[in-house]
Amino acid sequence: MKSLTKHLTMHVPERMGFVHITHEVADAVAESGVQEGLCLVNAMHITASVFINDNESGLHRDYKKWLEELAPFDASPDRYHHNRTGEDNADAHHKRQIMGREVVVAVTDGRLDFGPWEAIFYGEFDGRRPKRVLIKVIGE
Amino acid sequence: MKSLTKHLTMHVPERMGFVHITHEVADAVAESGVQEGLCLVNAMHITASVFINDNESGLHRDYKKWLEELAPFDASPDRYHHNRTGEDNADAHHKRQIMGREVVVAVTDGRLDFGPWEAIFYGEFDGRRPKRVLIKVIGE
Amino acid sequence: MKSLTKHLTMHVPERMGFVHITHEVADAVAESGVQEGLCLVNAMHITASVFINDNESGLHRDYKKWLEELAPFDASPDRYHHNRTGEDNADAHHKRQIMGREVVVAVTDGRLDFGPWEAIFYGEFDGRRPKRVLIKVIGE
Repeated sequence: MKSLTKHLTMHVPERMGFVHITHEVADAVAESGVQEGLCLVNAMHITASVFINDNESGLHRDYKKWLEELAPFDASPDRYHHNRTGEDNADAHHKRQIMGREVVVAVTDGRLDFGPWEAIFYGEFDGRRPKRVLIKVIGE
Repeated sequence: MKSLTKHLTMHVPERMGFVHITHEVADAVAESGVQEGLCLVNAMHITASVFINDNESGLHRDYKKWLEELAPFDASPDRYHHNRTGEDNADAHHKRQIMGREVVVAVTDGRLDFGPWEAIFYGEFDGRRPKRVLIKVIGE
Repeated sequence: MKSLTKHLTMHVPERMGFVHITHEVADAVAESGVQEGLCLVNAMHITASVFINDNESGLHRDYKKWLEELAPFDASPDRYHHNRTGEDNADAHHKRQIMGREVVVAVTDGRLDFGPWEAIFYGEFDGRRPKRVLIKVIGE
């Protein structure tokens, strides 16, 4: 069995933002030499997501608006008890649950086995500081 | 290490619908010869899901109503900017995030290692055309 | 390839509750002897979740309130058709979709490859009876 572990460092200057990371993940798969296996990609922080969807800016705007409706930013400790700890990012912990922590992608013939429009994104919900993404490839 | 890659083609004539695919996945696991490993099942399209829940038609009706409340269909470009691209399926990209892209199931003693009521479903949110599901089994 | 399969039995006396299970999962990884691989942790019941987020009681209170808003408990068969089967737990099947069924975690150098605040939780949405969690570790 072969395996490869790789970390990406993400820098999103806004509170919320999406970063296209398909190419970085594809490079890690190539580097691993795995022909048949699985590739896990996950946020290592609990106010961030990794998800697969469309590389289309209008949709990303829609997601931001929708997530803000489902779990609004509110720094006060009234709406979110989490913010009684001195944090202001309780909303980000909720948004991340909607968008998910991780994706698992099949590796077939040495490549990400993707449908026509699948693209991997890092989803940041409490940015303005460096965060990490983990890529793990295992297989043969 | 053994591995098997299989694709299913789904045909849902409605915009939204759920299809029970546990038997197809179990057949792929049997065909793979894997005794101990993991089985990934994912939608290859970004307006569809694969999820595990109850095989009960009342619940599926409830899911449809709930998803329509959380992310209503609206072809106009006013609610969803994604629909300014000429698409009308922005709602489907949202519904899929709630229900998820994929499931990963343990394979133990050559079979899907399932709880008593677990069943695998394809969730379609923008149907009326063929779409694909990927099954990847790896292990030994 | 090495593999290990382990089940935890959860006892949550309330309808909804979260249980920290990182230590149990870490023990299973150590027991497996896997140095490089993947660890799947999933609820075996369809009204429960396994998720990764913060070990902070205020946030858990926030999650409960939020999930109750997104999918309120309602035993009557009017809101949820699922409850026409004699069940009263349709809300739990919805809450579980928001929080997810499973997590997949990288195993690196024989340990869970975690960011600084990642912790694994069992999420119960229809408790008051024993339920099971599956841990599957594969790798080398």
